[in-house]
Amino acid sequence: MKAAIDEAKKSLGTGGIPIGSVLVKGGEIIGRGHNKRVQENNPVMHAETDALHNAGRIGSYRNTVLYSTLMPCYFCAGAAVQFGISKVVVGESKTFTGARKFMEDHGITVVDLNLPECIEMMEKFINENPKLWQEDIGEL
Amino acid sequence: MKAAIDEAKKSLGTGGIPIGSVLVKGGEIIGRGHNKRVQENNPVMHAETDALHNAGRIGSYRNTVLYSTLMPCYFCAGAAVQFGISKVVVGESKTFTGARKFMEDHGITVVDLNLPECIEMMEKFINENPKLWQEDIGEL
Repeated sequence: MKAAIDEAKKSLGTGGIPIGSVLVKGGEIIGRGHNKRVQENNPVMHAETDALHNAGRIGSYRNTVLYSTLMPCYFCAGAAVQFGISKVVVGESKTFTGARKFMEDHGITVVDLNLPECIEMMEKFINENPKLWQEDIGEL
Repeated sequence: MKAAIDEAKKSLGTGGIPIGSVLVKGGEIIGRGHNKRVQENNPVMHAETDALHNAGRIGSYRNTVLYSTLMPCYFCAGAAVQFGISKVVVGESKTFTGARKFMEDHGITVVDLNLPECIEMMEKFINENPKLWQEDIGEL
């Protein structure tokens, strides 16, 4: 989760939305990513899709764990379901409840670490950038 | 739908998976895309995500229609749900049943045109490339 938080901070440092993610297989990080809506003007590069993108074509996703600083939205949760990711570990779901039940209904184990560091980072960002945040979660 | 089929053919012509998609708003195509797993070695560039990527940051997705030659998988259906797309029109769902109920449960109108041209294109591709297709739908 530390690596995912580092990705979120990297995004914040480049003017973007502070959500980071890493994909882990066999105990090793095989893909890192962060939200790039602002940096690349790209609405589909959420943190999790960016991590999956950067991991490349790995074949089977069995026994992979997707870490994200925030509970995945339906888009990224849909990726976890479709790709067959086994487990999703998130930093928090207080600032955005996301699609936990949808993932669990499809057999994914979801762990919410409820980390104050992740909550504070998102609360500050959302308070300072409400419109950008609404755009990112499709609520404009 | 003709533009989406053209995108699918473009993908096939460049060695890729023949699924195409366009995003329409106010009667105009604002984004075109096709599956780029092979061409860009990118597991998250499904046809629909590529069309959304190419449409850019459009703000609200209310009153948009997403056309795809094939019923969206959970990943792309998740994008439609999260972004708030109003309607999804597909060429077929015979070769892949996809996530129709998931989209309808979230208020999206789904229309299946059941087009022989789309069915034949995918049947031929899947028969000739079974492993690549299994990779694309996360069944390796």
